[in-house]
Amino acid sequence: MKIELASSYGFCFGVKRAIKIAENAGDAATIGPLIHNNEEINRLATNFNVKTLHGINELKDEKKAIIRTHGITKSDLAELKKTDIKVIDATCPFVTKPQQICEDMSNAGYDVVIFGDENHPEVKGVKSYASGKVYVVLDESELEGVKFRQKVALVSQTTRKVEKFMQIANYLMLRVKEVRVFNTICNATFENQEAVKNLAKRADVMIVIGGKNSSNTKQLYLISKNFCEDSYLIESEHEVEKSWFEGKNLCGISAGASTPDWIIQKVVDAIEKF
Amino acid sequence: MKIELASSYGFCFGVKRAIKIAENAGDAATIGPLIHNNEEINRLATNFNVKTLHGINELKDEKKAIIRTHGITKSDLAELKKTDIKVIDATCPFVTKPQQICEDMSNAGYDVVIFGDENHPEVKGVKSYASGKVYVVLDESELEGVKFRQKVALVSQTTRKVEKFMQIANYLMLRVKEVRVFNTICNATFENQEAVKNLAKRADVMIVIGGKNSSNTKQLYLISKNFCEDSYLIESEHEVEKSWFEGKNLCGISAGASTPDWIIQKVVDAIEKF
Repeated sequence: MKIELASSYGFCFGVKRAIKIAENAGDAATIGPLIHNNEEINRLATNFNVKTLHGINELKDEKKAIIRTHGITKSDLAELKKTDIKVIDATCPFVTKPQQICEDMSNAGYDVVIFGDENHPEVKGVKSYASGKVYVVLDESELEGVKFRQKVALVSQTTRKVEKFMQIANYLMLRVKEVRVFNTICNATFENQEAVKNLAKRADVMIVIGGKNSSNTKQLYLISKNFCEDSYLIESEHEVEKSWFEGKNLCGISAGASTPDWIIQKVVDAIEKF
Repeated sequence: MKIELASSYGFCFGVKRAIKIAENAGDAATIGPLIHNNEEINRLATNFNVKTLHGINELKDEKKAIIRTHGITKSDLAELKKTDIKVIDATCPFVTKPQQICEDMSNAGYDVVIFGDENHPEVKGVKSYASGKVYVVLDESELEGVKFRQKVALVSQTTRKVEKFMQIANYLMLRVKEVRVFNTICNATFENQEAVKNLAKRADVMIVIGGKNSSNTKQLYLISKNFCEDSYLIESEHEVEKSWFEGKNLCGISAGASTPDWIIQKVVDAIEKF
């Protein structure tokens, strides 16, 4: 059986940047997990004494607080800045962008629609920057019955699929005079998604590696499953099962934007052993 | 054979308004045809002495100049205002809107895309308000190879089909960070289009009445033809042929936004005679 990696996969710019920031800072606490990958977070805790807190209320004697890649809410950031703790911002610049857009558009009198998962920390952060009406949806059907003003701004969680984003934009275009569409889906997401699709079309079995709480990893898995029925989402090499590969010719591999190369390598090693 | 009128057809708000303006003005000249309907223009000339000029260079002893529903170019308007001639603006307010948008967006640093026919007077007028880059297209393929800035504004000729408008918007969304979509397709167009579609699905033969130089009439005809093979575009009752109706059960009728009721009535009378 041949093993083939997708032409684009794994760590994105924002994740690489955040890990570098955390390593350089050392002896610090992150507000929520820095990235959606437990193994990498454990490594940062062990090797760099970067621990993970659930929220700003857990801060006690820390000297340095690192803002996670997904960002935090505007009010949490304001609270944090009132303290003596040094704030180190590892928010992905591609996430800072929709936060700014949300704030600016709200202030300019636009209703704001965010395409994303309202329970995801990135979306909670973006939403918190709205001063006016804001709607978080995963599907345009959730907007039925909403009485919009004549001006609506649309932004996206960075890790969403562009096809659905366009559907929501189209829904709005038919209903309001001005739709200001900000395509804030990041290129890394787009490239990883295109690559997993192309590989899954050819593969007999697909392995997608990443945190099960990672939005972009889940998207990769769903796309993979769509083109290759035998697709599996795993967090580490321990989950790999021999039976998945029996009688298969091509095993495709992709990984989420917060999956480090060393985990991917361990998975490849485990599969090669079979 | 039954004759049925579409649930929405004919004169729109902007056309009704322009005719009223022209009738009230009297003894005037319009710059280009006031509306795209020769029969109605002849009526205005005969009954109200409102004549039609081809351009501002033909103005001589006129005291009053009427701006046509489709608007004129920014420079022509400026020229006109320098003269002693009284300028009476019958530009449809739904056309003034994309003119303003085009000017504002250009000044704000947006590249402007106009969905429309570059030879149509409305589009020539709208385009003339751009101070920066402006592209007039009927299909997104015409934008291939264009190097856009990161901000693009999209407007539409008022009489276009919304499906293609959305396709162009979607094309842009995949390529630039911000697309500011102004749905300037007028409701009357949309309603007439929906109505002709619904009627054409049921009819055996469809008659669409309107000027053959009228954009919205041509759209109605194309939609009709899509759902009813035996569709005919005519300007007056003189073009009606008996053979079109032989063996038919339901004849549907629609008319463009610049087609007066008296012409529609003459066509119905002619068909009923067969």
